[in-house]
Amino acid sequence: MVTMKTDPTFVDVLAAADRIRGIVHRTPVMSSVAVNEIAGATLHFKCENLQKVGAFKARGATNAVLSLDEEAANRGVATHSSGNHAAALAFAASIRGVTAHVVMPSSAPPVKKAAVAGYGAEITECVPTLEARETTLDAVVARTGATFIHAYDNPMVIAGQGTAALELITEVPDLDVVMAPVGGGGLMSGTAIAVSSSRPDIAIFGAEPAGADDAFRSLRDGEIYPSVEPKTIADGLLTSLSDRTFRILSERLQGIRTVSEESIVQAMRLLWERMKIVVEPSGAVPLAAVLEHPEDFAGHRIGLIISGGNVDLEHLPW
Amino acid sequence: MVTMKTDPTFVDVLAAADRIRGIVHRTPVMSSVAVNEIAGATLHFKCENLQKVGAFKARGATNAVLSLDEEAANRGVATHSSGNHAAALAFAASIRGVTAHVVMPSSAPPVKKAAVAGYGAEITECVPTLEARETTLDAVVARTGATFIHAYDNPMVIAGQGTAALELITEVPDLDVVMAPVGGGGLMSGTAIAVSSSRPDIAIFGAEPAGADDAFRSLRDGEIYPSVEPKTIADGLLTSLSDRTFRILSERLQGIRTVSEESIVQAMRLLWERMKIVVEPSGAVPLAAVLEHPEDFAGHRIGLIISGGNVDLEHLPW
Repeated sequence: MVTMKTDPTFVDVLAAADRIRGIVHRTPVMSSVAVNEIAGATLHFKCENLQKVGAFKARGATNAVLSLDEEAANRGVATHSSGNHAAALAFAASIRGVTAHVVMPSSAPPVKKAAVAGYGAEITECVPTLEARETTLDAVVARTGATFIHAYDNPMVIAGQGTAALELITEVPDLDVVMAPVGGGGLMSGTAIAVSSSRPDIAIFGAEPAGADDAFRSLRDGEIYPSVEPKTIADGLLTSLSDRTFRILSERLQGIRTVSEESIVQAMRLLWERMKIVVEPSGAVPLAAVLEHPEDFAGHRIGLIISGGNVDLEHLPW
Repeated sequence: MVTMKTDPTFVDVLAAADRIRGIVHRTPVMSSVAVNEIAGATLHFKCENLQKVGAFKARGATNAVLSLDEEAANRGVATHSSGNHAAALAFAASIRGVTAHVVMPSSAPPVKKAAVAGYGAEITECVPTLEARETTLDAVVARTGATFIHAYDNPMVIAGQGTAALELITEVPDLDVVMAPVGGGGLMSGTAIAVSSSRPDIAIFGAEPAGADDAFRSLRDGEIYPSVEPKTIADGLLTSLSDRTFRILSERLQGIRTVSEESIVQAMRLLWERMKIVVEPSGAVPLAAVLEHPEDFAGHRIGLIISGGNVDLEHLPW
């Protein structure tokens, strides 16, 4: 059994990189002269929208599932999620040839259920409340013996997410700043561990919608505020920090910058129009922070993690 | 003065590759397990939507402008175009530090004019007829001494376009088929020269909208039919073959496959949804051909050139 240490370390990120190599994509780092001119900075985008399942979540889920010992793996894995983590865990379980049990709210879009089912996961529906999701998940775990893999409050998941930043700073060594979006803090924690441990000279920033700024306020005041009725188009960033991600971010971040909804849409559109890539609103939040906070970012060499590209093409925000 | 031989050769493609290296992008070749499953074939997409100016046209225009001798270059270059070639020529001229004169119909979208003007080109407007475009261009050339660079009926332009396929077959050596969209035949001619000269074992196909199938009919009957009132969403493929491109395609193509508008939209959407890249309708036509003609393409390893990604995000076809 892999020991679930409280906080993952840089060595865990390195081990994750070894473990998931060849299973998930080493995504490209892209840049655009036109976007640089608009931003007034030199930007390098780590394109996790081009990752398996369309999001960085494939990294953490794959690392977590491959870290399980044989006996635990054979009992399967389980999670509750209506989003990218569900598809990522289903993908990772299919790679290992074990069962993923996914609890999804009955209100989840059919296209998301189809994606999860497409990887062969067993879906259990529940009413769309957090309480129902947790109760239903507990019942699934009790019945199957599956290992619960939390979307972000899990050391192996965090270590896996950190591999994106590890690739970024390896491929583009002369960065001043690395920035990622902040939801529950899994990607941001992994990013912070990967960067601060190997390159303490690089400033690490989080980017968060002003309409879902619980992490910003939590770090500012030194206590965790839950995310209550968040309002933002960036639907991947609605969740609250856990004790673990709060602790990691408090120790390792330079700061979190918040952005308006208008900036998110503007940044998203810039990425589509100028760089010809499909990016979901959450993935555009770091670029929105560069555009909205020139006092912090103008003139710098910045690595930005584009977290995902799963978006409903029927309902675009312009 | 570079000799303008009637037809470009493989050596011209190699020389073009040397000339434009580091000025235009070596674009990535992308693939998707999900798209392969849907297509029933192994597909490798050469992503010219990620090229400078958002289209392969940057290759040919850059090669043509850099091929001019000093004296001719200093008199500038000229063309008439409302599309990607105008921006590409403006880009290429800006690289060499000479003037691009671009005749554009007064009906051209403001965003296209802005793109051309953004590279410092001199724009001359005319009424939106082919006759007015040619007359106005003649006057510009007579006044300035600029060299006319045709969008596709130019050996150096064709040689430049061929560099995309050259990169593709170098990076993915085990292809059975290479396919590109056919409009005026510049990209297709360059592709055919690059592939047939170096890899005669690879089948070369063109893909064309059924609503603009002049090249298909021309090759079938052995005579050039002009493109009359073409009707297709693939607005980069409306033009007619020239004597030169007709000759090259007649000699070197396995065939041209036509596709419905529905297939084009389906293919375009697949590329956006599954591969997270922004592709214009013309660029999705080769994938549409794979989907619509499994009798030719199922089970094969196919390299497809995605010609561009310049699309109006306000008006998507779904």
